[in-house]
Amino acid sequence: MHELTTGVLAGEPLAMARAISLVENDPSEAAQLIHDLHSKIGKALRIGVTGPPGAGKSTLINEVAVSLRDSGEKIGIVAVDPSSPFTGGALLGDRVRMQKANEDFSIFIRSMASRGMPGGVAKGTADVADILDASGRTCVIVETVGVGQSEIEVTKLADVTLVVLSPESGDSIQAMKSGLMEAADIIVINKRDRPGADKLMSDIQGAFQLSTRRRDVPIVQTSAATAQGISDLITAARKYIESQKASGEFAARRRRIATERVKGIVEFFMRQTLWESADSQARLESAVNDVLEYRRSLYDAARALLKELTR
Amino acid sequence: MHELTTGVLAGEPLAMARAISLVENDPSEAAQLIHDLHSKIGKALRIGVTGPPGAGKSTLINEVAVSLRDSGEKIGIVAVDPSSPFTGGALLGDRVRMQKANEDFSIFIRSMASRGMPGGVAKGTADVADILDASGRTCVIVETVGVGQSEIEVTKLADVTLVVLSPESGDSIQAMKSGLMEAADIIVINKRDRPGADKLMSDIQGAFQLSTRRRDVPIVQTSAATAQGISDLITAARKYIESQKASGEFAARRRRIATERVKGIVEFFMRQTLWESADSQARLESAVNDVLEYRRSLYDAARALLKELTR
Repeated sequence: MHELTTGVLAGEPLAMARAISLVENDPSEAAQLIHDLHSKIGKALRIGVTGPPGAGKSTLINEVAVSLRDSGEKIGIVAVDPSSPFTGGALLGDRVRMQKANEDFSIFIRSMASRGMPGGVAKGTADVADILDASGRTCVIVETVGVGQSEIEVTKLADVTLVVLSPESGDSIQAMKSGLMEAADIIVINKRDRPGADKLMSDIQGAFQLSTRRRDVPIVQTSAATAQGISDLITAARKYIESQKASGEFAARRRRIATERVKGIVEFFMRQTLWESADSQARLESAVNDVLEYRRSLYDAARALLKELTR
Repeated sequence: MHELTTGVLAGEPLAMARAISLVENDPSEAAQLIHDLHSKIGKALRIGVTGPPGAGKSTLINEVAVSLRDSGEKIGIVAVDPSSPFTGGALLGDRVRMQKANEDFSIFIRSMASRGMPGGVAKGTADVADILDASGRTCVIVETVGVGQSEIEVTKLADVTLVVLSPESGDSIQAMKSGLMEAADIIVINKRDRPGADKLMSDIQGAFQLSTRRRDVPIVQTSAATAQGISDLITAARKYIESQKASGEFAARRRRIATERVKGIVEFFMRQTLWESADSQARLESAVNDVLEYRRSLYDAARALLKELTR
C-alpha cells in the first residue's frame, strides 16, 4: 500500500498536498496511490468552473465554497493555472490569501500549472479530483481558464459545468468562438452590476436560439465581489444535479467520463511502454534521420518505427 | 500514388484545398498523400504567429504576406481557428475578404477549426504546412490564437515564432501567464499608436529581465492597420533566421520538430490500432463496468485492458 494512503483517507492536509505533488511529478507512483484509494472514490460531487481570464472565477468559487462550507460541506478546489515556469506562478497571490483565511482546511485549495503535468492536463486534474474525493471532500471544484480546447476538455470531468462570463471585454464572442458555450450546463453572468450585463444576457440567449443544437441552459447573474446571487447559483446547480439524477443522465455522464479516463490511461501506459524501452531513443533517432535525409517519408518512418517498438 | 499528388505538386489551388480537407476529414488518406509528396517537403520557411485574441494577428499577417509576395515569395497561410460547431465558423469573414483580394492565389489562405481535427491540432497543422510546402509555397505562415497550451504547442512547428501583443486588455500579463513569452523568438507590439504601447514595451523588457532563463528576444513595434513597421519586422525575422542558420540551430530545431512529429505519428497510429479492433469497444465497456462497480481500480482496469488489446 502506498505510504500516503492512510493520511489521504484520514483527510490530513499534508498527506493530501503530498499526494497531489505526486500527480505533478511522478505519475507512476500517483497511479499506485489512486489504485489504493479506489474504493473511496466516487462520492464527491464534481463541479467544473471555466470562463475567460478576468471573468472573476476565483472570487466566485471562493464565495460558493464558503457558502457550501457553512451548510456543512467539505470542499476541495483544484485550480488549473496556465502559468509557465516563466513567471514561477507569481500570480497565484489570490489563492494564497484564501488559503490563509481558511486554516481549518474545511476548504482545501490547490493550484496546478497546466504545463509539465506528465500524462496531460485532463488526466492530472482527474487524478487530483480522485484524491480529494477519497480524502472525504463532499464537493470538488475544478477551475480552469477557458481559453483553449485542452482547458475546456478538463471540465468534461465534472458532474456539472459552470461557464462564467463577465460583461467586460467581449466575453460573449470569445466564449462562442472557443466552444465554451457548448461546455456549459449553467451560465453565470458575473459582475452583473457592470455596464453591459443586460447586453451580455441577450447575446447569450440569442446565441443559444441560433444554435443548431438548441438546449435550455439556465443563466444566473451574480456579483461575486459583493457575494450577490451566490445562493441562486447554488440552487440552480442543485436543481440541475437533481434533474440529471432523476433522468439517469447523471450516471450516464459518469460512465462517459470513466470511459474517457480509462482510454486516456491506457494510452498513457502505452506511450510509457513505447518510449521507455532501452533502445527506443536510438530507433527514434534513426527514423528521424531517414526522414531528414529523404530516405523515407515521415509517415513511412513512423509506421516502421511503431512496428519495431511493438515487436 | 494519391490522386491529388500531381495537382498539389503543380500548385493548383483546388487540389491544395482538397488536400487540406483530407487532413481535416480523413487522416489515413492524408497520410498517403503526404507520403507521396515527401521528396518535395522541407524547402519552405515556416513562420508561426501567435498571440491573444484581438492583438491584430490576421491584419499583421495580411500585411506581411503582401509585402513578401511583392518581393517574389509565394505565401501559404494556415489559420487555426478555435471556432466550434456552435458558431459554424461565421467569424471568418476577414479571411474571406482577403481571399477575394488575392485571386491569383500568390497568397493561399486556409482556416481550420481546432476542434475535430482527427489526430490533434499539432499533427493536422503540420500536415497542412507540409502540403503547402510541397505545393511550391516558399513561405508558410501558421497562425494560432495563443490562449491555451495546445494552441501554443503548434508554434513549435515553426522555424521562427512571432508573438503578437497589443497595448490593450492586459496582454502582457495574459501572455506571461499563458507561457506565450517562452514561445517567442520575436515579440511584436502591434497597434503601437494606441495608448499603453510604451508601458507594454517596458513590461515585456522587465519580464525578460526577471526571467530565470534570460535570453535576448527582439521586440518590434508595428501598426498593421496602417502598414507601419512591417519591413522592420521582416528584417528582424530574416536576421533571426540567418543567425540560426549560421549557428546550426536552424537545422537542430528542424531535427527536434521532426522528432516530435515522428513520435506524434507513431502514437497516432498506435491509438488507431488500439481502438479500431473489432472487440476493443466491448472490452473497453467491460473495463469501465469493473471500475464503476468497484471491482477494479481505474489504473488496474486500464493496465489489464492494454494487455488484452496488445496481445
